[in-house]
Amino acid sequence: MDKVLGRPRDDAAGPALLSAARRLVSERGYQRVSIQNLLDEAGVGRQTLYRRWPSKAELVLDAFLDSAGRIPAVTEGPILEVLTRFLTHLFANLNEDGPALRSLMASAQEDAKFLASFRERFLQPRAKIVKSFLEQAVKRRELNENFDVDTASDMIHGAFWYRMLLGRPLDAAFATKLTTAVLKVTE
Amino acid sequence: MDKVLGRPRDDAAGPALLSAARRLVSERGYQRVSIQNLLDEAGVGRQTLYRRWPSKAELVLDAFLDSAGRIPAVTEGPILEVLTRFLTHLFANLNEDGPALRSLMASAQEDAKFLASFRERFLQPRAKIVKSFLEQAVKRRELNENFDVDTASDMIHGAFWYRMLLGRPLDAAFATKLTTAVLKVTE
Repeated sequence: MDKVLGRPRDDAAGPALLSAARRLVSERGYQRVSIQNLLDEAGVGRQTLYRRWPSKAELVLDAFLDSAGRIPAVTEGPILEVLTRFLTHLFANLNEDGPALRSLMASAQEDAKFLASFRERFLQPRAKIVKSFLEQAVKRRELNENFDVDTASDMIHGAFWYRMLLGRPLDAAFATKLTTAVLKVTE
Repeated sequence: MDKVLGRPRDDAAGPALLSAARRLVSERGYQRVSIQNLLDEAGVGRQTLYRRWPSKAELVLDAFLDSAGRIPAVTEGPILEVLTRFLTHLFANLNEDGPALRSLMASAQEDAKFLASFRERFLQPRAKIVKSFLEQAVKRRELNENFDVDTASDMIHGAFWYRMLLGRPLDAAFATKLTTAVLKVTE
């Protein structure tokens, strides 16, 4: 047993920090949360954090990536269904994480290093899921071989980020409209 | 003549403030520019500013709206050409104003009142131009009557904002790809 002064055991420190990051960044926005705030909230020492993450940015991105990872990426069925189902889950998720993600995107505009991490660790892995759905549909000839997967991905991610940044709702109805508009591209 | 202590004549104060706002916000980002900075840069008194604009936000939005207004909204020709031409001009414009606009979008995430002004005075008027192109094309039956103009507009604006916020390039090639992908929706 390595309990220290009421701190969570070391193997609980990672989850405690991830959950502190989710909570505080959702409440205050990325820029208003310091490393010290995270340590206090998680009841964890500085060394414990830095053994796991090189910086606040990496910890926070992992905290929200983890949440996004819970979206079931079920690939069975026609691409229209696959994509609508995925976006419907994603949008439900974004309604919860939206304020935090908006603050991450805002912070990334004034911090090139954070933007790079945000792109690489958060946005690109999500874009890859959508692209892989589309590429599989092209492979099984459900979508035309000239289907522009990259632009479609930009339109999908762009459309929901734009709506989210403007404070407009993301719901199942928009998931259906967006999927329909993007996939008709191939008819 | 109403020259006062080397200040520009009053009828030059508006343009001087607009140009100061463009310059300073482009250099420093919206949040790092104060009203006092704008007055100093334009060589204009506080009252002169407030006779024209109720706040920094309104002045800055006008400064960049003015620039966007210079894009020729030529409506002759097939919708594919009209939209490609418009987006090509817009993207060239965004390559110059991009850093400032990214800072406006970032600031809007932490300031609900500014977000409302940014939507109403800046984003919606631009969206209207694109929507009117599409609506006209639907009217003259160049686009199917079921064409989803609102979602198409979200995809267009979303895609280029998303690319811009991620620091990715906007060029004529992307204008063509985006227009092609959005308009194929109707075939």
